[in-house]
Amino acid sequence: MNPEALERLLTKVRTGALSVATAIRQLRTLPYEDLGFASIQIRAIAKSLLKHHRPLLATRATRQVATLIKRLDRRAVYHDEARIVSIRDPKRQLRGHVLVITAGTSDIPVAEEARVTAEVMGSRVETLYDVGVAGIHRLLERQSRLMEARVVVVVAGMDGVLPSVVGGLVPCPVVAVPTSRGYGASFGGLAALLTMLNSCAAGVGVMNIDNGFGAGCLAHRINVLGEGRDKREMRDKRER
Amino acid sequence: MNPEALERLLTKVRTGALSVATAIRQLRTLPYEDLGFASIQIRAIAKSLLKHHRPLLATRATRQVATLIKRLDRRAVYHDEARIVSIRDPKRQLRGHVLVITAGTSDIPVAEEARVTAEVMGSRVETLYDVGVAGIHRLLERQSRLMEARVVVVVAGMDGVLPSVVGGLVPCPVVAVPTSRGYGASFGGLAALLTMLNSCAAGVGVMNIDNGFGAGCLAHRINVLGEGRDKREMRDKRER
Amino acid sequence: MNPEALERLLTKVRTGALSVATAIRQLRTLPYEDLGFASIQIRAIAKSLLKHHRPLLATRATRQVATLIKRLDRRAVYHDEARIVSIRDPKRQLRGHVLVITAGTSDIPVAEEARVTAEVMGSRVETLYDVGVAGIHRLLERQSRLMEARVVVVVAGMDGVLPSVVGGLVPCPVVAVPTSRGYGASFGGLAALLTMLNSCAAGVGVMNIDNGFGAGCLAHRINVLGEGRDKREMRDKRER
Amino acid sequence: MNPEALERLLTKVRTGALSVATAIRQLRTLPYEDLGFASIQIRAIAKSLLKHHRPLLATRATRQVATLIKRLDRRAVYHDEARIVSIRDPKRQLRGHVLVITAGTSDIPVAEEARVTAEVMGSRVETLYDVGVAGIHRLLERQSRLMEARVVVVVAGMDGVLPSVVGGLVPCPVVAVPTSRGYGASFGGLAALLTMLNSCAAGVGVMNIDNGFGAGCLAHRINVLGEGRDKREMRDKRER
Amino acid sequence: MNPEALERLLTKVRTGALSVATAIRQLRTLPYEDLGFASIQIRAIAKSLLKHHRPLLATRATRQVATLIKRLDRRAVYHDEARIVSIRDPKRQLRGHVLVITAGTSDIPVAEEARVTAEVMGSRVETLYDVGVAGIHRLLERQSRLMEARVVVVVAGMDGVLPSVVGGLVPCPVVAVPTSRGYGASFGGLAALLTMLNSCAAGVGVMNIDNGFGAGCLAHRINVLGEGRDKREMRDKRER
Amino acid sequence: MNPEALERLLTKVRTGALSVATAIRQLRTLPYEDLGFASIQIRAIAKSLLKHHRPLLATRATRQVATLIKRLDRRAVYHDEARIVSIRDPKRQLRGHVLVITAGTSDIPVAEEARVTAEVMGSRVETLYDVGVAGIHRLLERQSRLMEARVVVVVAGMDGVLPSVVGGLVPCPVVAVPTSRGYGASFGGLAALLTMLNSCAAGVGVMNIDNGFGAGCLAHRINVLGEGRDKREMRDKRER
Amino acid sequence: MNPEALERLLTKVRTGALSVATAIRQLRTLPYEDLGFASIQIRAIAKSLLKHHRPLLATRATRQVATLIKRLDRRAVYHDEARIVSIRDPKRQLRGHVLVITAGTSDIPVAEEARVTAEVMGSRVETLYDVGVAGIHRLLERQSRLMEARVVVVVAGMDGVLPSVVGGLVPCPVVAVPTSRGYGASFGGLAALLTMLNSCAAGVGVMNIDNGFGAGCLAHRINVLGEGRDKREMRDKRER
Amino acid sequence: MNPEALERLLTKVRTGALSVATAIRQLRTLPYEDLGFASIQIRAIAKSLLKHHRPLLATRATRQVATLIKRLDRRAVYHDEARIVSIRDPKRQLRGHVLVITAGTSDIPVAEEARVTAEVMGSRVETLYDVGVAGIHRLLERQSRLMEARVVVVVAGMDGVLPSVVGGLVPCPVVAVPTSRGYGASFGGLAALLTMLNSCAAGVGVMNIDNGFGAGCLAHRINVLGEGRDKREMRDKRER
Repeated sequence: MNPEALERLLTKVRTGALSVATAIRQLRTLPYEDLGFASIQIRAIAKSLLKHHRPLLATRATRQVATLIKRLDRRAVYHDEARIVSIRDPKRQLRGHVLVITAGTSDIPVAEEARVTAEVMGSRVETLYDVGVAGIHRLLERQSRLMEARVVVVVAGMDGVLPSVVGGLVPCPVVAVPTSRGYGASFGGLAALLTMLNSCAAGVGVMNIDNGFGAGCLAHRINVLGEGRDKREMRDKRER
Repeated sequence: MNPEALERLLTKVRTGALSVATAIRQLRTLPYEDLGFASIQIRAIAKSLLKHHRPLLATRATRQVATLIKRLDRRAVYHDEARIVSIRDPKRQLRGHVLVITAGTSDIPVAEEARVTAEVMGSRVETLYDVGVAGIHRLLERQSRLMEARVVVVVAGMDGVLPSVVGGLVPCPVVAVPTSRGYGASFGGLAALLTMLNSCAAGVGVMNIDNGFGAGCLAHRINVLGEGRDKREMRDKRER
Repeated sequence: MNPEALERLLTKVRTGALSVATAIRQLRTLPYEDLGFASIQIRAIAKSLLKHHRPLLATRATRQVATLIKRLDRRAVYHDEARIVSIRDPKRQLRGHVLVITAGTSDIPVAEEARVTAEVMGSRVETLYDVGVAGIHRLLERQSRLMEARVVVVVAGMDGVLPSVVGGLVPCPVVAVPTSRGYGASFGGLAALLTMLNSCAAGVGVMNIDNGFGAGCLAHRINVLGEGRDKREMRDKRER
Repeated sequence: MNPEALERLLTKVRTGALSVATAIRQLRTLPYEDLGFASIQIRAIAKSLLKHHRPLLATRATRQVATLIKRLDRRAVYHDEARIVSIRDPKRQLRGHVLVITAGTSDIPVAEEARVTAEVMGSRVETLYDVGVAGIHRLLERQSRLMEARVVVVVAGMDGVLPSVVGGLVPCPVVAVPTSRGYGASFGGLAALLTMLNSCAAGVGVMNIDNGFGAGCLAHRINVLGEGRDKREMRDKRER
Repeated sequence: MNPEALERLLTKVRTGALSVATAIRQLRTLPYEDLGFASIQIRAIAKSLLKHHRPLLATRATRQVATLIKRLDRRAVYHDEARIVSIRDPKRQLRGHVLVITAGTSDIPVAEEARVTAEVMGSRVETLYDVGVAGIHRLLERQSRLMEARVVVVVAGMDGVLPSVVGGLVPCPVVAVPTSRGYGASFGGLAALLTMLNSCAAGVGVMNIDNGFGAGCLAHRINVLGEGRDKREMRDKRER
Repeated sequence: MNPEALERLLTKVRTGALSVATAIRQLRTLPYEDLGFASIQIRAIAKSLLKHHRPLLATRATRQVATLIKRLDRRAVYHDEARIVSIRDPKRQLRGHVLVITAGTSDIPVAEEARVTAEVMGSRVETLYDVGVAGIHRLLERQSRLMEARVVVVVAGMDGVLPSVVGGLVPCPVVAVPTSRGYGASFGGLAALLTMLNSCAAGVGVMNIDNGFGAGCLAHRINVLGEGRDKREMRDKRER
Repeated sequence: MNPEALERLLTKVRTGALSVATAIRQLRTLPYEDLGFASIQIRAIAKSLLKHHRPLLATRATRQVATLIKRLDRRAVYHDEARIVSIRDPKRQLRGHVLVITAGTSDIPVAEEARVTAEVMGSRVETLYDVGVAGIHRLLERQSRLMEARVVVVVAGMDGVLPSVVGGLVPCPVVAVPTSRGYGASFGGLAALLTMLNSCAAGVGVMNIDNGFGAGCLAHRINVLGEGRDKREMRDKRER
Repeated sequence: MNPEALERLLTKVRTGALSVATAIRQLRTLPYEDLGFASIQIRAIAKSLLKHHRPLLATRATRQVATLIKRLDRRAVYHDEARIVSIRDPKRQLRGHVLVITAGTSDIPVAEEARVTAEVMGSRVETLYDVGVAGIHRLLERQSRLMEARVVVVVAGMDGVLPSVVGGLVPCPVVAVPTSRGYGASFGGLAALLTMLNSCAAGVGVMNIDNGFGAGCLAHRINVLGEGRDKREMRDKRER
C-alpha cells in the first residue's frame, strides 16, 4: 500500500465511506517497509483523530505526513522548523509566560518544537534565539527579559553551557535541552547532555537530547501552576 | 591543622577573638590533605556564615562537619539520612505541596536530601517511600495522594522505572532523580539516568545521579510558582 | 552475478538441472558486493534447504530475498512486519501459551519476529501490543491475560520499563527484548537494555537489542517444558 | 545506634517485649551511616519476618547480618560463599532439575547465590564448576549431564564465552550470568555481559552482572513449568 | 577532476607522456570531494607504483579503484571478497603454514583480507571457514588441521568467542580479529573485541576490528620465523 | 625496604658514603609493594637529582616523599595544595603574565599544580579563584584582569563551562583543564572534559583531567613566546 | 525556497534592490529542510557580510555554498581541501611562523582547515604532510624545520601518536588535533583524542576531533604573542 | 579458616598427613571472605601442585601467598616486581631471543610479569626499560638491540604510543601491552589500549590491559617457532 492508497483510505473514513473498525483493521496490516516510520505515525494519528477531539500534536512529521493529515482535518497546520503538525482551538487564549532561548541558530528547530508544543497546550511563549555564551554580553543585555518568565527553556548543542549561565541569572525553574548539534567529541549530543546534568546552577531539570516536545510539555505544566490560582479566584468571585 | 585546631579557630571568630579577615586568611592556608573535602567545605560554610544571615544548607556533610558548624551557630541542625546541616527560620511557614517518593528503601538518603532542601527553602513537603513498581499496586493505591501534589520528586536507582510510571499518572511536573544504588550494569546510576532521560511519559525533568539537593531546589522553584499569586493578592488586598 | 542470475541458478538446482555440489561451488564464488548481505543469506539458506528438510526460518529477509526463496520452495511464506521467510509443517499443531507484548507500536516489528519464530518452532502465541506504562491502566486491565501465559515476551524501546512492571505482575518467566526505537540518549537501544538488565523484578532474562528471533527461541524452549510431560503421558497411555 | 543496640531491639521484638509497630518506627529512624547498607537490609528483613511467614532469602548478607538474623529466627542458615541468609521449610521436597555451571573457580560465589536461591524456592539443583572453554574437553566429557537438565545456569567472567558453547550443546533454556571477575578491559564484567548478549547460540537469556539471585529466580520459574502438569495430573487422578 | 580524467592522467604517466613530478603535482591538487577516499588512495598507490617495484597491496579498494590500477600495471589482480588489489611476483614460492578460520560466513571478507595479505607477503595460507562454536563439533572434527599450523588467524564477529576456544586447542600463536558483524549490543564489533582481549586462553594477540590486513601482516611475520633457519641452513649448505 | 631504609640509602648517596652506581642498583631492586608509587617516584627523582642540576619538579608527591627529598637537597620546597616538591633558582626573575583561574574552591589543588609548575619554569603567575559561572557577575567584574594576561589557564570540574565563557571574553590563548571534581554523571571529570573539547569559543586548548602540571608547562611555553624578542633585543643592544 | 531563489534574494541585497531588514526577515522564514545546514550557514554568512567588513571565514562549506557567497562578494575564495570560503585583505602581510604537520595523507583536509584559518587571521603558515611515526626517520630528518616554528599544529587520526613524538622534539607549544580517520576501535576519532590527552610529552594542548578551525585560531593567537613586542618596539622607535 | 589454618592444611598434604581428596574437599568449603582472592588462588595452585609436576606459575600473588606456596615446595621463587611465584627446572636452558621494553618506570611490574612468564616457559629474555617517546633518541640509539630480537614485547601506559614507534622500526612481530598507569582520560588503561589497537604500524598484536602474563605466553610461543627447526634438525642429524 503506497501513500496514495493510504490517503484514499483515510479520506474514506473522514467522509464516512469506511467504518472506523474496518479502517483500523486495514491500517494494522499495512506493510511496514512501504512508508517507514510514517505509516506507523499516520496509523497512530488516525486512531487518535477518529476517537478523540482533543488538540492534535504530531511531532517529527515530514511534509508528506502533514499533507496526509491535512486531508483528514482541514484545521491541521504544519510548522516547518518544528516539524510538527498541530490542530489547536483558535478561541482558547494563550496564558502565562514561557521563554525559550537557544545558544546557536542550528538549535532553533528543537526550540521551535518546544515552543509549538507549549503553545498547542495553551501556554504563551516568547523566544530569544542565538544568545550563546561565546558572546555573553548579548545574553546579559536581555537579562530583564529572562527575569520576566515563569519558566525558561534553554536549548543548546556542542558544549551545552548556556543553561548553567542562565540558571545562575534567573530565580525561576529552568528546563535544559541538549541538542545533537556538533561533531567529534560531542558524540551526538552526549557532551551537551552531561554538561547540563552536571550544571552547578540550582533549579535546572534536563531533557533527553533533541527532546523539544518533552521540554514544551514540562514547561507548560510548570507554567500553568502559576495560572491555577487565577481560575480558582475567578470561580470564587463568580460564586460571591 | 587538625579538626580541633579548626574548631578553635572558628570558635574564636564566633566570640570575636579573631577578625573575619584574619580568619579567612588562615582558612585559606589550611593544608588540603588534613581534612579532605571537609576543610573546603567548612571554609566555604564559614565564609557564608560570617558574611550573610540567610538560611544555611550544607550538603554531603559528615557528622564531624555538623559538630563544627553547630559550634559556629547553635541553631544548626544535622539531618542524619539527608547528610545536611541546616539553619532555617522557624517562624517562616512552609507552603505549597511537594511530594517526594522513592522506589526502594536505599533511595531514601537522596530523597531526604531533596526533602530537607525544599523545606529549608520554604516548601511544605510530604513523602511516600518504598513504592517501586515491583509491587505496582502499592503505588496505585496511593494515586489520590499523587494527584494532590503541585510537583512530584521521584527518586529511584537500579532500573529507574518509577518516574515513567508516575509521569503517566499525574498531571503536574515530575522531577526525576536517579540514584547510584545498584550493581553491575547499573554503572553507578547511569542505567537509571538513561531510563529517566528516555521516559515515554511527558513532563519529566531529570537531575544528575544522587542529586537530591538539585531536585529539592527545582521542586521548590516550581512549587512557589503556585504560591506567587497568593502573595500578590494579599498585598493587593492590604493596599485596598 | 546479479539477482536474476542467482535466481536462475537456484531454480536450476530445484529442477535438478544443476547438482548440489556444483551449485554450492558457484555460490561460494559469488561477488560479495553485488547483493550485499542478501547473497550470503541466500547462500546459507540454499545450503540449508538443499541438505535438510527441517522447518526454515530466514530472519531479516528483504522482500527480494523472500521472492528468491519462494522460487526454491513454494511453501515459503513472507511475514512482512517480522521480516521473516518461513516454511513450517501446516499439520503440526501449535501448543502451549506464549504471550508477546509491546510497549509501543514501533516495537511491533521486533515482537512479530519473536512471534513468528516461536510459532514456526511449534508454540501457540498470543499478542498484546501497545500497552506501555505511559498509560499503565491499559496494561492492568489485561492482567488476567498476562496470568494465563506460560512465558511472557516483553518488547520495549526508549526507556524500556515495561518488563519491570510486567515482571512484578506475573509469576511465570519473562523474556525482555530491548529495541533500538528511540533517539538521543537511547543510544540505539542501550538505555532500554540497561533498564532491563537492572530490573528490580525477579525472573527476567534479557536478550540483545532488537533480537526478536532469540526471544522467540528462548520463549519456545521455556514453553515446551510445560508440554514435555504431556507427551510422555501420551506415550505411556498408548503403551498401556 | 550500633549493631549491638539493633540486635537488642530485634531480640525484644522476637520475645514480644516490643510491639511490631513500635519496632518499625524505631528502625525507621536508625542513623544511616552507622551500619551502612546493613541497617537497611536488616530493617527490610525484620519487616518481612514480622509480617509474613514465607521462606526468607537475604542476599549479599555479611556474616554480621547473618548473626543478627539468626537471633530473630533460629532456623536461619548462612551460606558462606553465596553470602545468603535463608530460612526454608525443610519438609518441602526439592523438585525438577536445574544445573548451575561455572567457567572458573572465582565465579563460584555468584553460582552459589543462584543455587541457594533456586533451592530455597523449591528447585532441585546440581552444580558443575570450573569447566571453562580454555580446556573445552572437560566440558564435553560432561555433555550427558548437561543434556539431563531442564534449565542450565551458566556463570562466567572475563571473556564470558561459556554460555555460547553450552547454548550450542543443550536443547533447553540457558540462563547466562556474567561476573565481574577479570581486570583491565573486562570493565567490571561489561565484556562478559556483551559477549553473552551477542551469543550466536539460540535460547540464551542474560542477567545483570553478578546477579546470581536473579538467575536463581528465573531458573526456578522455568524449572517449575516442567512440574506444573504433574500437580494437575495428581489432582485429576485423585478426582477420578 | 572526475574518474575518467584521473584515469587519463595515470595512463599518460604509464606511457611516459607525463613526467612523474608533474603527475604528482597534478594529483596533489585533485579536488577532495570528487572521488572521496578513492582519490587519496589512488594518489598514494600511484606514488608507490612509480617509485618502487615492490609487491603492491591496496586494501579496501573498490572495483573502480581496481580498474584504475590495472591500467597502471597489467599484473594487478582484484580480490573481490578481500577488496584488495595486489601485484605479487608469481615466481616467488609461498612457504610455511598460516591457517585462517572464521566463525560465520559473513566474517569471510575480513578473513580473505588477511589471507591475501599474508600470501602477497609470501606465506602459504589455508582456510577453514564457518566453524563457529554454535556447532562446536564442526570445529573439533578439524582439530588435526588446527594442530598443523604455525600460526592461526581467527576471525569472528558478534560474541567473538571462537579465539578463546581455538586458543585452548592449539599450542601455536593465535591472532584474533574481531569483525563488525552483528547488531544491537555488538556496538560495531566492540563486544567481539572485548571478548578477545579478555580471552582466558593464553597466547592470543588481538587486532583492531575488521583489521584483516594487520592480521595478515602479523601472521606472516610469525610464520617466517619458522622459515628463517631454513634459509640460513640453505646458505650454510651452499657455502660448504 | 621501608621508608626509613630508603631515606638512609639516599642520605648516604648525598654524603658520598655510597656511589651513584651502587645506589641506583639498590633502588632498582626495591620491593614494589612496600612504598607503592612513592618508591618509583623517589627512584626517578633520585636519579634525576644525582645526574642533573636543573630545577626539580616532583608532582603528585605526598608529604612523606617531600620529607625524603628534602634530605637529599635542603633547597627543596613542598607546596601543600599543589602536592609538588620543587627546587628552583631563587635569583631567576619570574617574567611575563600567566593568569590561572578556577570555577570552584575544590578546583584549587589542580590550579596550584599549574601555578607552581609555571613558576618553577620561570613564568610570573597570578591567580583568580572561585569565579564560576553560577555567579557570572563575579567573573565579569574582573574582566580587566583577564584582559591583561598573555595566556589564561582555566580550571573547572563538574559542568566545566568556565573556559567557554572566558574564551569568549579574552583575545589571548586559553588553556582549559577539567578536574575530577563532581559526582554521578561527571564520570570522574569526563563531563567537564567533553564540555571543554566542544567549546564554542575559539582559541581553547584542552588538557587531560586534573593535569595541572601539563597546563603549567603549556602556559609557560606560550608565555615565553612574548618574552623571546626582548632577550634578542637585549643581546642586540649589548652587541652594539 | 530553493537554492536559486536564495541566490536571487542575496543578489538583490547586494545590488540594493532589497533592504537589509527585509532580506533578513525573509531569510528567517526559510524552510529548514530545503537546503539543510547550508541555509543556516548562508543566513549567518549573509548577516555577517551585510553588517561587518571583517575578513570572512566560512568553514565546512560545500562548493554550492561557495558559489552562493561568491555572488555576494567577488573577493570570496573557495579552498577545496579545507572546505573553507574566505575573504581576506590581500595587502595585509602574513607574520610569524606556524607549522602544520600531518601523520597521513587523509589527515590533510583537517590540516588545511587549520592552515587557511590561521592565514586568514594573519599568520604565516608552513606545512609538512604525511610524516607519521610508521616511518619515524622521515620526521626526524625534518627536525630542523620543526625547531624553527613558534607553534606546531599536529594533525593525526587512527592511533594519534604523532603529537607525543613531536612534543618530545620541540620546545614550543604544540596544538594537537585528532581526526576521525580510521575504523573499528578508532570510534570516530575517540582513540586518537584519548592518545593526545594522555600524551607524556609536556606542552601539548588538544582540540576536538576534526577541529582544524579551532586549531588554526589557537595557533594564530599563540603565534601573534611573539609578534606583539615588535609592534610596540616599532611604535617606540618612531616616537623617539 | 585463617591463613595460618590454610598453611597447616597445605603442609599436611605435603607431608602426606592428609589425603589429596580430603584436602580438596576441605579447601572447597573455605569461607570466601577470609582470604579474598588469595584463598581461591591457593586452592587452584594446590590442586595444580598436587596433580601435576609441570613448571608452576602463579601470577598476581602477594608475598603472603608466596610464603604459603614455598611451604608446599621449597623450589618456589617469588618475583617481587612481577608478583609471580614460579617453579622452573633450573637445568633447562633458555633459548631464542625475546626483548621486553617499557615506556616508563611504572610500566616495569607488568613488563616483569611478561619476562618471568616467558622465562619460566623456556625463552631467553632481554629487557630495555624506560625508553618512552618523550625522549625518542634514547630509543633510536638502541635500534640495533631492537633488530636482534625474534619478538618484541612493548609495555606502555598513558598514551601508549611506544608500540607504534617500535612497530615502525623492527621487522619482527610486536606484542603490545597497555598498562593501567595514568590518570583522568586514561580511563584505567583504555586510552593506551585503543592507541595500540589503532596502531598504524603493521605486525602488532595487542593484549588486555596489564596482561603481562598473556604477553609472556604469546611471545614465548612466537619465539619457539624460530627454535622448532633446530630441534627437528638435531633429531634428523641424530637419525642420520
